[in-house]
Amino acid sequence: MPAFKRLPRAVRERQMLDSAVRVFSRRGYHAASMDEIAEAAGVSKPMVYAYLGTKEELFTACLHREATRLMETVAGAVEPDVPADRQLWNGLRAFFDVVATSREGWTVLYRQARGLEPFAAELADMRSRMVRVVTVLLGRAMAGSGGRATETELEVMAHALVGAGESLADWMTDHPGADPAKTATQMMNVAWLGADRLLGGTSWHPEAGR
Amino acid sequence: MPAFKRLPRAVRERQMLDSAVRVFSRRGYHAASMDEIAEAAGVSKPMVYAYLGTKEELFTACLHREATRLMETVAGAVEPDVPADRQLWNGLRAFFDVVATSREGWTVLYRQARGLEPFAAELADMRSRMVRVVTVLLGRAMAGSGGRATETELEVMAHALVGAGESLADWMTDHPGADPAKTATQMMNVAWLGADRLLGGTSWHPEAGR
Repeated sequence: MPAFKRLPRAVRERQMLDSAVRVFSRRGYHAASMDEIAEAAGVSKPMVYAYLGTKEELFTACLHREATRLMETVAGAVEPDVPADRQLWNGLRAFFDVVATSREGWTVLYRQARGLEPFAAELADMRSRMVRVVTVLLGRAMAGSGGRATETELEVMAHALVGAGESLADWMTDHPGADPAKTATQMMNVAWLGADRLLGGTSWHPEAGR
Repeated sequence: MPAFKRLPRAVRERQMLDSAVRVFSRRGYHAASMDEIAEAAGVSKPMVYAYLGTKEELFTACLHREATRLMETVAGAVEPDVPADRQLWNGLRAFFDVVATSREGWTVLYRQARGLEPFAAELADMRSRMVRVVTVLLGRAMAGSGGRATETELEVMAHALVGAGESLADWMTDHPGADPAKTATQMMNVAWLGADRLLGGTSWHPEAGR
C-alpha cells in the first residue's frame, strides 16, 4: 500500500474539503459531482462518502470550514489594547487576506450558499455572528471615545460595515491583483473617517441644510 | 364572462408578477409551484404559462421588474443641482423606501436570485449597473468638491456603499418597523461623514499612528 494511503484522517479530510471547495466554486453546487470531487482529491468516491457524507453534508462541511476560518482570523487580529481605528483596520486586513488567499472559499460562501435553500438559514446564522462581533467591537470603541449610541444604532452601523466588507471581498475575487492591505485602507477611508466623527459625537442630519 | 376577465394585458401581467413575487419570496424558487402562483393571481395555470412562460422565465421576469423598479426609483431621486450629501441621502432614502414597501421583492432579489445558478449572472449584471451609477455620482461629487481620486478608488468606494446599502436593506426586511428615512440617515452617519472628509482631501493611513 503506497504511503499516501496512510495519511492521518484530519489531513485526508482537509484534502477532500480543499478539493470540494475548488469544485463547488467552479461548477456551482448543483453541477458539481461527487466523482469530480473524489478525483480531484485523489481518493475514491466511497471514501468521500465515508468521510464526509452526502453532497449536501459535504457542502455544509465546506461552509463551516470557510466561515470558521474567516471568523477565527478576524477575531485573532483584534488586539483590545490598540486604538479603535487600528483595531478595525487589523480586522479588515485579516478579513481581506483570507479572502485573497481563498477566493474559491469566498465564492462558495458568498456567491453560492446564501441562495441555496438548504444552506441559507445556516449562512444567515453565521453572518449574524459576524455582525454581533462587529457590534460589540463598535460598542467598545464608542465607550472608549465617550460617544453615545443606542444598541440599534450600533447594530445598524455593524450591518453597514459587514455589507461593505462583503461587497469589497466580492470585488477582490473579480480583481485577483487587488492588494488586501490597500483594500482595507480604502475601506477605512470611507468607514473609519465617518465612524470616527460619529464616535466623537458629530452626526449628519437631513435638516442641516448643508 | 365576468368583468375581471377582460382586464388589460398589462394589468393582468402585473397581478401575476405580484403573486409570483409573493409566492417565490415565501416558498423559495424550488419549492414554489406554478399552481400556487396561478391560484394566488386568480387565473388558471395555462394563463400564467401563456403570459409569462415557464417558472424560470417567470422568475426572470420578477427579477427584472424588481431590479428595474429599484434602479428607476433611485435614479429618479437624484437631483443634480443639490449638494452631494443631500443627493446621496435622497438616493438612499428612495432605495430604502422601495425595499420597505416591497420586502418580498427584495427577498427574491437579494436572498434568492443571487445564489440560483440560472439567475446569478443576470443579477451580477444588474448589481454592476448599480455600482456604475454610484461610481459616476461619486465622481461628480468629488469633482464638485475639488477632491481627487482614481477611477479604482471611486469604484471601491461605490462597492462599499452598495454593499452597505444591501446589508441594511436586508436588515430592514427583518425589522418591519424600521423607518426608511431613519435608516438612510443612519447610513449617512457612517458613509457620508467619511466620504465627505475623503472628498475634501482627508484620508486615513495605517502609518499615521493615531
